[in-house]
Amino acid sequence: MNETASLNPEEIHEEVYAMGRQARTAAHALANLHADQKNVILRAMAGELRVQSRQILAANARDLEEGGKNGLTGAMLDRLRLDESRLESVAGGVEQVAELSDPVGEILDERERPNGIRIQQIRVPIGVIGIIYESRPNVTSDAAVLCLKSGNATILRGGSEAIHSNRAIAAALQEGGEKKGLPPHSIQLIPFADRESVKEMASMDRYLDLIIPRGGKGLIETVVSLARMPVIKHYDGICHVFIDEAADLKMGRRIALDAKTQKPSVCNALETLLVHEAVAEKFLPAVAEDLEARKVELRGCPQVQAILGGRVAAADEEDWDTEYLDYILAVKVVDSVADAVTHINRHGSQHTDCIVTSDEENAERFLREVDSACVFHNVSTRFSDGEEFGFGAEIGISTDKLHARGPMALRELTSYQYRVRGAGQVKDPLP
Amino acid sequence: MNETASLNPEEIHEEVYAMGRQARTAAHALANLHADQKNVILRAMAGELRVQSRQILAANARDLEEGGKNGLTGAMLDRLRLDESRLESVAGGVEQVAELSDPVGEILDERERPNGIRIQQIRVPIGVIGIIYESRPNVTSDAAVLCLKSGNATILRGGSEAIHSNRAIAAALQEGGEKKGLPPHSIQLIPFADRESVKEMASMDRYLDLIIPRGGKGLIETVVSLARMPVIKHYDGICHVFIDEAADLKMGRRIALDAKTQKPSVCNALETLLVHEAVAEKFLPAVAEDLEARKVELRGCPQVQAILGGRVAAADEEDWDTEYLDYILAVKVVDSVADAVTHINRHGSQHTDCIVTSDEENAERFLREVDSACVFHNVSTRFSDGEEFGFGAEIGISTDKLHARGPMALRELTSYQYRVRGAGQVKDPLP
Repeated sequence: MNETASLNPEEIHEEVYAMGRQARTAAHALANLHADQKNVILRAMAGELRVQSRQILAANARDLEEGGKNGLTGAMLDRLRLDESRLESVAGGVEQVAELSDPVGEILDERERPNGIRIQQIRVPIGVIGIIYESRPNVTSDAAVLCLKSGNATILRGGSEAIHSNRAIAAALQEGGEKKGLPPHSIQLIPFADRESVKEMASMDRYLDLIIPRGGKGLIETVVSLARMPVIKHYDGICHVFIDEAADLKMGRRIALDAKTQKPSVCNALETLLVHEAVAEKFLPAVAEDLEARKVELRGCPQVQAILGGRVAAADEEDWDTEYLDYILAVKVVDSVADAVTHINRHGSQHTDCIVTSDEENAERFLREVDSACVFHNVSTRFSDGEEFGFGAEIGISTDKLHARGPMALRELTSYQYRVRGAGQVKDPLP
Repeated sequence: MNETASLNPEEIHEEVYAMGRQARTAAHALANLHADQKNVILRAMAGELRVQSRQILAANARDLEEGGKNGLTGAMLDRLRLDESRLESVAGGVEQVAELSDPVGEILDERERPNGIRIQQIRVPIGVIGIIYESRPNVTSDAAVLCLKSGNATILRGGSEAIHSNRAIAAALQEGGEKKGLPPHSIQLIPFADRESVKEMASMDRYLDLIIPRGGKGLIETVVSLARMPVIKHYDGICHVFIDEAADLKMGRRIALDAKTQKPSVCNALETLLVHEAVAEKFLPAVAEDLEARKVELRGCPQVQAILGGRVAAADEEDWDTEYLDYILAVKVVDSVADAVTHINRHGSQHTDCIVTSDEENAERFLREVDSACVFHNVSTRFSDGEEFGFGAEIGISTDKLHARGPMALRELTSYQYRVRGAGQVKDPLP
């Protein structure tokens, strides 16, 4: 980037911290916008994305050209690419967020104490949220508008390969919004994409209340090790389906096949299939046939190999801890619900795990004992998703346990405040 | 400590990580205990504290003796000291926690989707919580039993000066509990107190879901800079009272005096008094008289000095950012509610701030715009407390915005899980 090539670490520090201060001011203004005002602003942003589509696509073309020169793979270039239709779906996404109900102002708890003070716990925005992400330029808009709808200011830091696209999208959002009263600096994009800016963001706990990294494990690990403020992590999904001895085996086949093959590249796809030994001989050949018809490679424990023979490779210890995101499935025979639970709690990633069974007691035990964000009974793991849960758009699926767990949508982008009203109550009545 | 003087960093690592693994196993067992079982365990713990009081007080005497030799101040020795009556209040505190209602299992949200899947959001324990604290040995019991009541395992790491007391208390809790079915390793105390053990805990995000540091700013800063897992911070309280132009001035005097002097050493005590210029000439001499009668030193802005004359020292910029925890009060004249809000949002610590006014509109504006965990209208800041709020015992007052904000009690020691029940739903019906 010619514009910033000359910045030294000291200058980057100054610039990022100045953005932090401005974001804090914007956040105080945003917290007091009414839902209607925010929705008018969001619709204006969607409109401006359409008005500026030529500029945005031109900026994207520049990123693609530089990416080609820099040796990005075809898959990387595809993630980076925008066209009229993808940009329209970004703009449509903004309009959808305007339709969602505003979580801010919801009263979570209300109580009056014997001394007459009235305590109200009310939902408020978090403040300033940092989003650190990789190549997809649509994240610039998706993340910023979810934060805005929930009353938060954002500081965005996208990948260097998408810098021109991200700048163009952020400019359109800010310009469109400001025409309708968006406070300045509500949405800021760090205009350079070296690692120094991540370090500065991670140190800025005075101005950033939360960082959400969106990307691969390496990115998340880096942010976690640097950040002084809370980080909500969206780690991998090593999801399990357990076919219980009391399972409807037809349903088990349907769920396993759907969870593995309907979209293997996503975090809620199936990675390890567990089968109760009492039904293994009957179930495994049938499900193997379904899966093989869809070109899924199976890797099994010795018992699975004994039943299915040479068509199954041996799974090693590492397979139980792997998120393939591909047409590969680890398969293991277990001897009880307890054994399945133990395997999942040891090897899973606390994302989404399912039991298929007709036995209510086994189902409830599994739901209670599996320590994952989402536990399913007789439902494909692919339903672990904010939209499927009815939350509207989501910013990700948290594998953390604090603040937000599982699908993270508007509600999870808020905090709360206690408002206490009285009539002059004091602890010690004065003499 | 003779027992551990020979441990090298590698051995400390092994030992702390072994405790982490054991705590994870204990947490899975604890998550499934019924409220009644936990209460029986808690009462047995209280009993055992009483049964073992001789040993606990002897251990405490050893800490006090070593502390005396190591030059601890009188105040430090007093914080460290246990006697029959203090120990009885620790045991009584455990029984009180048994009386509180169990947050685990509460259904937070329930919904059925058009496709028939039923989604339940249910409160579950967090898992394993690390508590890192300083000299008061009662924290060993207070923190462990709040965590236990909410279904969590704890790893405790107290200050070196209280190590014998802490060991004796933790042993009594564990022994008393295990007689009634407490899973082993539910409450573990790190048996040595060097800094290496804090580093190991902070790195152990696989086994520790949360760290809560309880102590001074230095301790919290250290934990924040090292921790890979979420940390909930209880930083200082730079609390404000703002006397509006429409205040009942008698009420204002009463609240200011109570907030400053009823117990100056705590985080919800008043540190800066803001007075609207329209009432400053009338209010300041009166409140100064009250405060001076209680030996409070005033430090004022130039306008305050002009009104009160030589009895008031000049406040400098640092005074607005200081938590005195002492009989000192900073006083400033402001020209509007907006001016008060700006001062508080810039200099406060987002803990607890109060407006005294009879004007509803000013009150609501203040409550809405002050970005603090607790905002009060006509109530002394000293009521910012879990027990005063009706939550029962609290583990602290969080100055964070994520997960827990303000008084942090049992509810805030839990997470949630989505339990989803269906009838074989898949995303793509198979061909």
